[in-house]
Amino acid sequence: MGKKSSHVSLRPRLRVIRGESIALGPGKVDLLSLVGKTGSIREAADRMGMSYMRAWTLIKTMNACFKKPLVEAVRGGSRHGGAMLTEHGREALQLYHQMEKGSLAATKLQWKKLKRLLED
Amino acid sequence: MGKKSSHVSLRPRLRVIRGESIALGPGKVDLLSLVGKTGSIREAADRMGMSYMRAWTLIKTMNACFKKPLVEAVRGGSRHGGAMLTEHGREALQLYHQMEKGSLAATKLQWKKLKRLLED
Repeated sequence: MGKKSSHVSLRPRLRVIRGESIALGPGKVDLLSLVGKTGSIREAADRMGMSYMRAWTLIKTMNACFKKPLVEAVRGGSRHGGAMLTEHGREALQLYHQMEKGSLAATKLQWKKLKRLLED
Repeated sequence: MGKKSSHVSLRPRLRVIRGESIALGPGKVDLLSLVGKTGSIREAADRMGMSYMRAWTLIKTMNACFKKPLVEAVRGGSRHGGAMLTEHGREALQLYHQMEKGSLAATKLQWKKLKRLLED
């Protein structure tokens, strides 16, 4: 891993399409992941530098694309306005991350060859 | 392949990044492919619904990212303003397509599971 590998990179951006909507893509998955970590849509939105409204819209789109919601509001308790991933949400997130890893692994050989063609 | 599989789909969009530039991505690769097929940047741009200037800018970016140009102008001959892929260009295009195929193949199992979570 020399200078070159930090300069060129391969990014697989997987998009799961349902009808006219993007059910899951890199941005939505990052958001899901942060909601899971922080337990808050507002906190997740802040960390991604997006508005709460934007985050909420993305989550509404995701929820509508799946048979069961991926994110649900946590009512009551000390954490007002909190949210959490449902089991469905954790499963979707895990499958997406596995696909990302699989995609990177599967492209390794060609990527090595392609890197040689790229300018340093 | 029933109704469902036409309604939901997985699109791996691979991006090859060099420094601040996208050396290759889905759009650039489609353009490359069309230049190879049509032998003309103008014709390729038309088919993609983009301006000649836009196509030319994308090609300049690609050419600058690689050690050797991927596309070169064809001077003289009957096809004024024609262009062709160089050997370097054909190789890059082939490697990218192989990576796309590999990526799809590698995600098949998880995609099957994820599809089951998606709304019909």
